[in-house]
Parts: sequence; structure tokens; C-alpha cells
Amino acid sequence: MRDTLFISDLRDARGAAIDLLIAGGRIAAVTPAGSTSSDMPGLAGKGRLLLPALVEAHCHFDKTLWGQPWRANSAGLTLRDYIDNERRILRGLDVPIAARAGRLIEHCIAKGSLHFRCHVDVDPEFGVSHVEAMLALRETYRDVITMEFVAFPQTGLLIRPGTLGVMEAALKLGVEHVGGLDPAGIDNDPIRHLEAIFDLAGRYGRGIDIHLHDKSELGLWQIARIADFTEERRYQGKVVISHAYCLGQAGPERLARIAARLAETGISIMTTAPADGPAPPVADLRAAGVNICMGSDGIRDAWSPFGTGDMLERALFLCLRFDWAKDEELAMAFDCVTTGGARVLGLASYGIEVGAPANLILLPAENIGDAIARRPQDRLVIAQGRIVAEDGRYLAAG
Amino acid sequence: MRDTLFISDLRDARGAAIDLLIAGGRIAAVTPAGSTSSDMPGLAGKGRLLLPALVEAHCHFDKTLWGQPWRANSAGLTLRDYIDNERRILRGLDVPIAARAGRLIEHCIAKGSLHFRCHVDVDPEFGVSHVEAMLALRETYRDVITMEFVAFPQTGLLIRPGTLGVMEAALKLGVEHVGGLDPAGIDNDPIRHLEAIFDLAGRYGRGIDIHLHDKSELGLWQIARIADFTEERRYQGKVVISHAYCLGQAGPERLARIAARLAETGISIMTTAPADGPAPPVADLRAAGVNICMGSDGIRDAWSPFGTGDMLERALFLCLRFDWAKDEELAMAFDCVTTGGARVLGLASYGIEVGAPANLILLPAENIGDAIARRPQDRLVIAQGRIVAEDGRYLAAG
Repeated sequence: MRDTLFISDLRDARGAAIDLLIAGGRIAAVTPAGSTSSDMPGLAGKGRLLLPALVEAHCHFDKTLWGQPWRANSAGLTLRDYIDNERRILRGLDVPIAARAGRLIEHCIAKGSLHFRCHVDVDPEFGVSHVEAMLALRETYRDVITMEFVAFPQTGLLIRPGTLGVMEAALKLGVEHVGGLDPAGIDNDPIRHLEAIFDLAGRYGRGIDIHLHDKSELGLWQIARIADFTEERRYQGKVVISHAYCLGQAGPERLARIAARLAETGISIMTTAPADGPAPPVADLRAAGVNICMGSDGIRDAWSPFGTGDMLERALFLCLRFDWAKDEELAMAFDCVTTGGARVLGLASYGIEVGAPANLILLPAENIGDAIARRPQDRLVIAQGRIVAEDGRYLAAG
Repeated sequence: MRDTLFISDLRDARGAAIDLLIAGGRIAAVTPAGSTSSDMPGLAGKGRLLLPALVEAHCHFDKTLWGQPWRANSAGLTLRDYIDNERRILRGLDVPIAARAGRLIEHCIAKGSLHFRCHVDVDPEFGVSHVEAMLALRETYRDVITMEFVAFPQTGLLIRPGTLGVMEAALKLGVEHVGGLDPAGIDNDPIRHLEAIFDLAGRYGRGIDIHLHDKSELGLWQIARIADFTEERRYQGKVVISHAYCLGQAGPERLARIAARLAETGISIMTTAPADGPAPPVADLRAAGVNICMGSDGIRDAWSPFGTGDMLERALFLCLRFDWAKDEELAMAFDCVTTGGARVLGLASYGIEVGAPANLILLPAENIGDAIARRPQDRLVIAQGRIVAEDGRYLAAG
């Protein structure tokens, strides 16, 4: 199962015809098409495009309703209403996370995502039950995907006494990152919030990933404070700010200053490329040296009925959000759902290069732009050298 | 081929299990599932959702590069650059419209669109050649789709002498509508532009569809002038303004006044729900009585590499643009890609009702929201009582 796999007649991102040799779960050779002995048994690539596996850098699989009957969205108007509404729904569910999230993970694998950063709810009511369920799922799919976790205080941190202790318990169980949530807008005490999460992360040597929905001045002020903490605690390169809509509301000069600071502190920005409001100006941020990754956020849950888990669709949303159409812009979007995410996840060896784990997608497209524009569903996915999805369908381990 | 077709075990938009009888190309009966004699030969619906055919109310099939090798977007920065760039590309193409647009039409049919309003370029260089090609295609697909045309002065009207004459020639050939293009921003003489198109339309008794990209005050001022002309010429109900981004830039009170005027004059608004800038506030406009339709605009052409022709995806874009998630909002989005478009196209009999032409989609989804959220590609499409696409693939007439 982890033996040699030879695939002839593929096309690389630049359109060159290539053959691919996989051995021991890794890429052993990428050679011009036809240059390897053709009597080698293997798979006919049929001119399909070879891409690295996609990176889903922000998801909430523990709260998905994937595979469940349709549920009309019943939340109120505010973020707080949505949080409370979700508690009610999750409390009433009798289908375990293993079933809901497991099915969604397989769906995402079939779309070509093999690396995940998943936020997992922790609160005094649910304790670490979501974490335990997700850790078990990670074990189930360990031969196929890499998945790291963020302990996410969905119902608040300081305003929900007891949450910090649950977060610490989550870290002890193996969760890699400490999550934050609108230190001002939700938790109402931004500096103590940041102290709490940086203290906790520092004690356990873990990363930090902060949901920041707060808009405009309030959001921008918090980004500056997160940068302060990142410097003071020497946490450069270990912090992600997720959403950060407010970056789309800074004027050009102010944005340039903030972007320089984000680049200096190695703070990455995660965006879903939302169409309904301000979004981080990805091209400007990247030009300033800021790393950008993308995520699906919620997929078919109490927050939204939408989401397909297809990170090529997410790249399309980024292009549409900023009216990108040139080849170099499409390549930039693709970078956000691949190497930008790989950097955040700290994947040591990633991409189509000899020696890297063979985590790959084959799909009928001419190039990266075509793949984003048409998003063919007929994808063959290879994980650690093994074919795990074919024709857009997950293949159970055999 | 136009005989009786019985389909058992379908689900209507409200989730009820139904059987469907088609006879003579029309819906003959919709009955509770199982209430019709089960020994009737037919098709097993397998619980699939029954939807009316989708309406593509704004497309530019004559300029598509669908099916052609990838072409890097080479346009400059301005609208004018894009126009000039497209001329160069279309001039150099040796693949006829029949091949490019024909293939795209079949693709759109397979997605479930069976009614089209297509803008067709007319200018002194190309004359009516695009119109003739599209008229021939309409003839080719006459048993499957309805398609109406707008004579579209893509390179300008008054600034491109000779264009008005070509537009008149297009009307004589059977084109149903007179197109306009940024009377101020492109054509530089808004009132004479409107006089020209209303005069021409009035003489031939045709409709009007104006591309209005002009933003902010300039756009809003032109909408008021279009409403003036619509009243003066008694053209109520015969005018569409396409794009009208500026409506997303009016404050609430001003929007309310403009919306009331649009409703009074029966001017419909077409939107693609763009993510990259202002968009007509669809919910507010509809609440004021304004009819809204949607279109793909360009699909894989010199303007954009994007577009799939899937009007369920377009409905999703509308939901994402305005953060819609409730069932009634999803139904509103669906309305924009179905009945809103049918009203613009003047379809006399449309929808799932006894006596209406059997133009239908069957797809594996629970309800309208689920169909928009997941957009299953496995669609069976029935046109005028005949199965024309199966499993997402167009079936050549047999």
C-alpha cells in the first residue's frame, strides 16, 4: 500500500508534461513525460493536472451538521445570538461528532484537502468532550491527513468562568494551539484576554490563533495589541489572526504600517474572503510580506447552511472578492490555499518536490487558473502515496 | 419524444412527496406520491427534488471562449482597455461562435438553465455577424431552450458612429431588445444615448436592457433619467437595468425613493451579486416591489476566466453577498434565478404548475436551500417534456 506508484502523462502547474514516481509514500521522481521506461506498471495520468494537496487552515468540524437533515437557520441577529443558538442545537443533537465530522472529513479529503487546522469548542458545559472526539478522529484518519487543533473558547473566555481551565486540559490532551475570540467585542476585557491566552500558550509552548471579528477601529486597535504581545512574549511566527475583517477598513497608509508590523512579527492572517463585508486586502498584505492562509470556517452548521469544504472554491471566492483574473493573481489565490496554509500549519515538507510526502491531487484541468475557475469534481487524491479518493469519492482504507 | 412521461417519488420545494405526469410537453398532473397507479411505466424519482428550470437573464454567449485553450487575461486596467482588448482577441479567433457558444449552451442546459436572455455584440466592425450566429444557434436548440437577444453596443453607441444602424439591422433580423451601455461613463452623452435607444426600441416595439456600471452619483443620476424616459415613453415594464452597482451606494432613504420609482415604472434590476464592490441591495429592492433577476454575465471570456453557467451557484453568490442564511432568504435567492428572470423574459407560463411547459430539474437535494448550498452536479433536466440532460451531461437530441 505504501509501495511504488508510477503515474505517467501528467501536467505540472506550468503546463509541462511529466511523469511521477512515488515510493515509500514520498515523491521519488518528477521527470519529463516519456523519459521513464514505459513498461513500468502504473497509472495513466491522461494529461491531468498535478497539484499539491490543499490546506484547510480554519475549520470547525466539531460543530458541523454535515449529513444531517436540513435545519432551518434559527439564530437571532447578533453574534451573541448565534453563539447561544448553537449551544441549544448542539445540546439537542444525538448524532456524535465522530459521525458528523468524520463524514465531512472524508468529503474534504475527496476534494483534495489533506491538511487541516481545526478549531474545537471548549467551554465549561461541554468540557473537553469535543476535543476528545476530534482527537479520536485524528487517530482514525492518521494515515491520510494531518490535522492540528485550536482550543477555541466559542462562548467566551473571561466572561465564561471555568473556560481557561478547560483550555488547559485540552492542551494536556494534545491540542496544539490556544484560541482567542474577540478579546474586546465578545470578552470585554482585551488586555486580560490576551494575557490569559499568551500566558497559557507560553507555559505549554503552544501556538495562538485568535478569532477577530471586531470591525474598524476596535479591530485595528486589537491587532496592534496582539502584535505588542507577540513581540513581548517572543511569539514571532506562532500567532494567527483569523478573519481580521478590520484590515479591509484601514486606509492605505495605515494598512501599510500595520502590514509591516504583521510581517515583522510573523503574524499570519486567515481569511475566508467574505463577500458580505470588509476583508483583509490579501494582495497588499502579501506584498508587504504577510503570510495569508484560507479556511472554510463553518461548513453546514448552526451558523451557516453553506460551505462545501472545497478549497479550490475558496480560492475562487478570493479571486471574486478582489476581482482577480490575471494568471499571477490566480496563482496568488492558489498559494493561499496551499503554501500559505502549509506555513501556518508548520508542514516541514510540502509541495511537489522530490522527497516530500506524496500528498497530491490529479484533476482534469489545464492549469491552476482553469482548476480554480471550473473546479472539476473528478479528482483523484493521493495521501502519503496511496490513492484515497477517486472520481471525487473517498475510498475507505483497504 | 413528446409523449407521456410519469415520474414517481419526487419531492416538491416544501418537501412533500409527489408524483409528476408530463404529457404533450407540459405538466399534466402533480399528485401526492403513490396516489397514481404504480403500474404506469415511467421513471423512478428516487426522492429527488423537483425544481423549475433556471433562468439565465444576462449572458454574453457570443464572446465566450468556452472549450478553447486557456488564455491568460491580458486586458489593461480600465473598462475601455477591456473593451479594446476583447476586440483584438475576438478578431483573432478562428473558432466560430456556433462552436464556442453552442458548447456553452449545452453546458448550461446540463446545469438546468432553459431560458436565456443573451446580449449580443453589435458594432460597425462585426456588424450583425454575432447576431446571425446566435440566431442560428437559437434555431438549433429551439426544441430545448427559449433564448431572447439584446443588441448590445459593446464598443459604445454614439461614440462609435454606425452602431445605431447595426442595432436597427439586428432588430430587423429578430432581436427582441435594444441594449444600452453606460450612457454617461462610456458614451459620454447620456440623454442623447437614452433618446437613441428609446427611439429605436419605440419604433420597433422592442424592450430595453441597459448595462450600467457607472458608480455612485453618476449611476444614481442615470437611473433617475432612465425612469424619466420609461415614464415619458410609456415603457413601463419593458426596461431592465443590468448591474446597477450604484444602487448599493445610495443611503437608506435615497434608496427607498429610487426603489419606489423603479417599482412604479416596472424597471427590473439584473445583478450578478458581485463580491468585489457595491451591489444592488436585493432584499430592500424586492421589499419595495422591484423585480430582480440574475445572470452569469461573461463566462470564460476575454473579460474573466470565471463563470460556470450554474444559476444555483449564482443564487449562492447572492446569499453570500448579503449574508443570507435563513430559509426565507434562500427562497428569495432562488426566486431571483427563476421567477424573477421568467418575469423579465416574459415567459407566459412558467413554473411547476399544471399546464405549464415541462421545463424541470430533478436533483438529489432536500429542498431549495440544500440545492443552493451543495449544488449537486447530478442533475436530470427535462425540456418541453423530454429528458435533455442526465447526470449533469447534455444528451444530444435523439
